[in-house]
Amino acid sequence: MNLFDYKNYFENELLNFVKLEISNEDIKKSLLYSLSSGGKRLRPWFINSISNEINVKDTLLCEIAIEILHTTSLIHDDLPAIDNSKLRRGRETNHIKFGEYNSILTGDYGFVFPSKILKKLPYGNNIKLNTINAYLNSTLRLIEGETEDVIFEKKGINPAYKEIINMYKKKTGELFGLSFSIPFILKGDEDKSKIFYENGIKFGISFQIYDDLKDILYDSKELGKDVGKDENKKTLISKIGVEEAKKFADENLQNTLISFKSENLHHTLKNIIELKNIIEKR
Amino acid sequence: MNLFDYKNYFENELLNFVKLEISNEDIKKSLLYSLSSGGKRLRPWFINSISNEINVKDTLLCEIAIEILHTTSLIHDDLPAIDNSKLRRGRETNHIKFGEYNSILTGDYGFVFPSKILKKLPYGNNIKLNTINAYLNSTLRLIEGETEDVIFEKKGINPAYKEIINMYKKKTGELFGLSFSIPFILKGDEDKSKIFYENGIKFGISFQIYDDLKDILYDSKELGKDVGKDENKKTLISKIGVEEAKKFADENLQNTLISFKSENLHHTLKNIIELKNIIEKR
Repeated sequence: MNLFDYKNYFENELLNFVKLEISNEDIKKSLLYSLSSGGKRLRPWFINSISNEINVKDTLLCEIAIEILHTTSLIHDDLPAIDNSKLRRGRETNHIKFGEYNSILTGDYGFVFPSKILKKLPYGNNIKLNTINAYLNSTLRLIEGETEDVIFEKKGINPAYKEIINMYKKKTGELFGLSFSIPFILKGDEDKSKIFYENGIKFGISFQIYDDLKDILYDSKELGKDVGKDENKKTLISKIGVEEAKKFADENLQNTLISFKSENLHHTLKNIIELKNIIEKR
Repeated sequence: MNLFDYKNYFENELLNFVKLEISNEDIKKSLLYSLSSGGKRLRPWFINSISNEINVKDTLLCEIAIEILHTTSLIHDDLPAIDNSKLRRGRETNHIKFGEYNSILTGDYGFVFPSKILKKLPYGNNIKLNTINAYLNSTLRLIEGETEDVIFEKKGINPAYKEIINMYKKKTGELFGLSFSIPFILKGDEDKSKIFYENGIKFGISFQIYDDLKDILYDSKELGKDVGKDENKKTLISKIGVEEAKKFADENLQNTLISFKSENLHHTLKNIIELKNIIEKR
């Protein structure tokens, strides 16, 4: 499935699943609101697309789990005490809509819920445990990365180049590392799961830098989110400049593309190149 | 081990474990602060004491995981947007000490970390998955219970008797249900794990009511936490009065004691009776 067909298919599955599986009405309503705010659904798409290409089946629960994890992390990032964002994807952020207490608790729920979803995977105990373990590790590193980012900003720390890269690896890289490696974990191919985890991290770094570049080039209305309030954010661009950062992002993306090519993941590769063209033409 | 010897032994193990296992310094410092604030360590003690009496070994990781879960839930409960508590166990709450952003992220970490700890259990995959599943279910219900409690308060809802009991079951009952059932899950005794899960829920309800009664009878200095700001909290006492609530708590506790007796858990039983006497003599 290409990215655009997948988005329609997946959003339907995602929202139906959450409607059925969460019983608390306040948590359900608030999580559904944030889950239905759009987005490219890139992380679950990678799981789906790579899995199809290597003949791994029954990945929907993994796709749902990773999107809930990603959305949950955004709900907490947007909170007044953290990024204090009022707008996300053109709509009010979760805490503006439902109150801060509700967003905190919905986020708590959303960080734990994915592991419970994975318990239902139609795989043997060993693969199931490896999958849950991969999600737990990535979730913890994601939270660590967010903590590093916030601490840099709140404490006015000027991080070194290496510290920024490490923070990007955790904050944005982890969930791509996870989405790239899950198909191989489900296949029971430990070696390749490690290689593709590293590739995903690299893709995530390039993705974060392209996102930082957008924040500089476009205004808030076009992006549907608060821009400019990120001024105190420590980005790679503020460290090494636009040109060098772009070069670094391109290199990382190129490495990802090579890895897809060498593994004959032609469909995934083709879609990524199309996505990059669309982003650059904006 | 009796409750008091256990407390000393366990606190040492708990803090050493966290010092070794968490790498992010800000999360580690903030979690250690809240974990070292004392408390009776009742939930891990139940796991330890019941396990000893039914010959189940290697329970330390389960004990550590449940105490981290309990402490984490308190860190988020105390946040300005939820209970807005400035004092807990005689010390500044986590967000007063480390900032709200740090407490939110430490709590996020603390809700996910326990499952990762359990991955290390020296048990077979099946029992390991059942144990992780029990923790995940209890964590989600704990968050649901907290959500119900906060929603009652923030929206000025006057819940029915049954709704308050349901909220107590989740908010306080769950972690005792978990601590009572884990020894039997580790033993592979599914039937008894279910019976003792229900017993734990009952104990939790009585525990919550005794706690509510303390808040009425003692002042903030004696308890080392904010009192009175719970005025808008919907407690069973505000619904049915002190006498009826106390009667209901005593009945629930009595049921727990009977279940310990019928299962020949004499050591655990003896300690609970002593604990109750100490609380009543305050």
